[in-house]
Amino acid sequence: MDRRSFNRRMLVGGGVAAATGLTSLSLGSIEASSAEPALATAPAGGAVRHLKLYAEKLADGQMGYGLEKGKASVPGPLIAINEGDTLHIEFENTADVPVSLHAHGVDYDIASDGTRMNKSIVEPGGTRTYTWRTHAPGRRKDGTWQPGSAGYWHYHDHVVGTDHGTGGIRKGLYGPLIVRRKGDILPDKTITIVFNDMMTINNKPAHESPNFEATVGDRLEVVMITHGEYYHTFHIHGHRWADNRTGLLTGPDDPSRVVDTKIVGPADSFGFQVIAGEHVGAGAWMYHCHVQSHSDMGMAGLLLVAKPDGTVPGYEPHDMTAHGKAAPDKAASGSAPKDTAAHDPAAHGS
Amino acid sequence: MDRRSFNRRMLVGGGVAAATGLTSLSLGSIEASSAEPALATAPAGGAVRHLKLYAEKLADGQMGYGLEKGKASVPGPLIAINEGDTLHIEFENTADVPVSLHAHGVDYDIASDGTRMNKSIVEPGGTRTYTWRTHAPGRRKDGTWQPGSAGYWHYHDHVVGTDHGTGGIRKGLYGPLIVRRKGDILPDKTITIVFNDMMTINNKPAHESPNFEATVGDRLEVVMITHGEYYHTFHIHGHRWADNRTGLLTGPDDPSRVVDTKIVGPADSFGFQVIAGEHVGAGAWMYHCHVQSHSDMGMAGLLLVAKPDGTVPGYEPHDMTAHGKAAPDKAASGSAPKDTAAHDPAAHGS
Amino acid sequence: MDRRSFNRRMLVGGGVAAATGLTSLSLGSIEASSAEPALATAPAGGAVRHLKLYAEKLADGQMGYGLEKGKASVPGPLIAINEGDTLHIEFENTADVPVSLHAHGVDYDIASDGTRMNKSIVEPGGTRTYTWRTHAPGRRKDGTWQPGSAGYWHYHDHVVGTDHGTGGIRKGLYGPLIVRRKGDILPDKTITIVFNDMMTINNKPAHESPNFEATVGDRLEVVMITHGEYYHTFHIHGHRWADNRTGLLTGPDDPSRVVDTKIVGPADSFGFQVIAGEHVGAGAWMYHCHVQSHSDMGMAGLLLVAKPDGTVPGYEPHDMTAHGKAAPDKAASGSAPKDTAAHDPAAHGS
Repeated sequence: MDRRSFNRRMLVGGGVAAATGLTSLSLGSIEASSAEPALATAPAGGAVRHLKLYAEKLADGQMGYGLEKGKASVPGPLIAINEGDTLHIEFENTADVPVSLHAHGVDYDIASDGTRMNKSIVEPGGTRTYTWRTHAPGRRKDGTWQPGSAGYWHYHDHVVGTDHGTGGIRKGLYGPLIVRRKGDILPDKTITIVFNDMMTINNKPAHESPNFEATVGDRLEVVMITHGEYYHTFHIHGHRWADNRTGLLTGPDDPSRVVDTKIVGPADSFGFQVIAGEHVGAGAWMYHCHVQSHSDMGMAGLLLVAKPDGTVPGYEPHDMTAHGKAAPDKAASGSAPKDTAAHDPAAHGS
Repeated sequence: MDRRSFNRRMLVGGGVAAATGLTSLSLGSIEASSAEPALATAPAGGAVRHLKLYAEKLADGQMGYGLEKGKASVPGPLIAINEGDTLHIEFENTADVPVSLHAHGVDYDIASDGTRMNKSIVEPGGTRTYTWRTHAPGRRKDGTWQPGSAGYWHYHDHVVGTDHGTGGIRKGLYGPLIVRRKGDILPDKTITIVFNDMMTINNKPAHESPNFEATVGDRLEVVMITHGEYYHTFHIHGHRWADNRTGLLTGPDDPSRVVDTKIVGPADSFGFQVIAGEHVGAGAWMYHCHVQSHSDMGMAGLLLVAKPDGTVPGYEPHDMTAHGKAAPDKAASGSAPKDTAAHDPAAHGS
Repeated sequence: MDRRSFNRRMLVGGGVAAATGLTSLSLGSIEASSAEPALATAPAGGAVRHLKLYAEKLADGQMGYGLEKGKASVPGPLIAINEGDTLHIEFENTADVPVSLHAHGVDYDIASDGTRMNKSIVEPGGTRTYTWRTHAPGRRKDGTWQPGSAGYWHYHDHVVGTDHGTGGIRKGLYGPLIVRRKGDILPDKTITIVFNDMMTINNKPAHESPNFEATVGDRLEVVMITHGEYYHTFHIHGHRWADNRTGLLTGPDDPSRVVDTKIVGPADSFGFQVIAGEHVGAGAWMYHCHVQSHSDMGMAGLLLVAKPDGTVPGYEPHDMTAHGKAAPDKAASGSAPKDTAAHDPAAHGS
């Protein structure tokens, strides 16, 4: 069967099994049709993957996770896998205090809990392999339906400072974790926004919150995570999402509320995709916490949606001192799964 | 086709195209069947509408939006439109500080953002036209489903006091915005409840929270908005709603949770319809924030559900000093779209 | 028809009418198939039930509800009924201050409101009958769909300390209330977790939060209620649920988000079922508030999931001083509806 003849609806609805690819930053593999506006969707999982992850102290006293020594970032790297995948993470602690790795959403034995109580933390200089498994949805033997692992999850330290990792999380030991379902639509770009203590976003100083860049029409994926002590209300100007698993309505019968504001608290995470500038066009669209004192303290950044010619109407970087530096945030932008895979020979098999 | 022969199910399920009506307070047009208990549903949108809106200082130091000069209220007027409608709002600022108009949920160019950064605020004495567009749901060219604009949204100032409108919102510059989908059921009456700073409801002083009136069997619509600094839990005695887009279950397969309490934070908004007194009868039903110190400070009012004879069993106004004045709140009660339209010749066309 | 021949899917999907049973602790009746792994589901309701409930002062200065004199507990007893049931509660106040009973979710006349304003509180030494009704979902005469009463609800005092029961709730006057729909899957065991003021769980002292026991494969039901002043984020390690009515996905088309963390505030309640240790195995799985200072102050307990041989790998009770006493909490564990009913002759009718 010719890939070019795929009906787009088929791809959206269910996807077709394809060979998977692996990149260092994103573990998500893709399924691409070469027909013009075709959507790439996640394939079935089932792969066993290996990853090296480092916990490090950063120059400014913060801490971060990284895929390479000396390259830790805040947030930590985006880890994206598919339902059915198993991920073995060889974790090395280069810091001078015990650090751990605790994940939300995925399956793991108690030995991968990442807690002091379950003896799964890592001493300074030590290493430990954490294993995360995932599963597809399906019917149990008793006839009930069990959910799959798909979701916008996250990982974080559970031991620095206190037995709940309060110090580690505050310093930056956290990152996004996406588990995709076969058929889930892949974005052009994924960004991560973490509301943390001290009214920071991605641990940036107040009034230096990260800005993000997109071009009108891009399918932009946002992973939104909260940490620390406070509740917040996450809001984006000019863009909305469905308050369900994917952030996308499944169709006309999906009763989910469509929102542009969502109340969140520590360890909450959700994600969604928007078409940048859809129905509203290019512009410097604010995203911010809508708790008034929080936004006033600087908990606000920009989604810079450019026209195809690269310009953002009305946007002058020197106007932005109140909203963060103009340079877009690199650490929090995942490589585009679609583009990445396009350069990955393994993705073209089958 | 005789309107009287409409099958009720048809109206609920999808509605039938009908001429639209326009009123000054509510922009919602309706589709009414004259068969006895027939439900009115929202028609398809597509109209271009114009509205004049004023921002004003009120006598007591508060501020409000109004449809006529000198008639501003807190909350501001209910604006109800249908998916597909475009609304041009000629906004005049009669106050002595810059004011703006920022909307949630609807589509607008960056020039209608209502922010200082995007140069869309209005100086004292100035005017500006803000344009809000809406769209129906449908399938994109790439085969994915895009949500429509329908929702229980809101509008507010984004510049008084701070660049996020903290002062304007605190003083009362906010209001409800409903976008209806073709086929959405129209209520008999719409009320707006806004939890704001200083533990106020609709900016009323503590222990003077608004009461609302309905008769058993009325289809009452509640728009619930939160502003300011704090989180709250909105609760009504004796009435429940579905935690989804409309607050109504779409049918037996809708998995949404049915609730009588919902956690909310600043800029959250949702709405729902209840049949007043359904299964519980007439009475003075409290609504309140369930954060204990908030309700103790007076963040509580009454939904006075009367029998057909107008009496509310067990309700004695002089008992109510702890729960707000007995007089129902006029400012926050929208005109009943159904009744309004019944007096609007334009609604009877087709 | 032989009960042993029931197709499991039939039971899950809709259930079959069966005679109902009544026990003192749980009012839920069940429908059991004796085929090996068959699921028990809730039958249709319609019963009229009577219950005696006491409000009492406890030795330590707290207060509680109980089914027998001198046997009050915190939380109060689990009350589980089926849609269509009516429950008459003869309530006796043995305390030295007025106490009341206010329920969420169920239908009641204003005389059963449990508030001072509606003259439905009970003086010391007094008694009063509160009547709660419930109803199944169905279509209204106007063609719209009305939700049933099913849900994970709760009851609490509304008068001790303040007119909103702030003092009574703080002292322990609250309990879980489940209304089941015909066909809802019954759990093997139900536990109740209440986040309350002073960063307590089920009013236990800090660092003495309740632990709960299960065996791998048990269908464990969790009722999660919040009270008091603060917002929290409820989190369990290694287990997830659907954020909808039952906590279980209805099938592959249910768009609900699957979560392991949920933001909650006072009077919020929700419930879900997990298969203990599914995909993750036995272990001492923490549950805790994920607001960092709250967990650090001791707002954390354990779900002790044992292997079939009764051991919990890696779990040593003396390690648990930071997480509460090792002994599982009896007060908050409801009797297992399935087991209970198995000993109830009335449950075997048909």
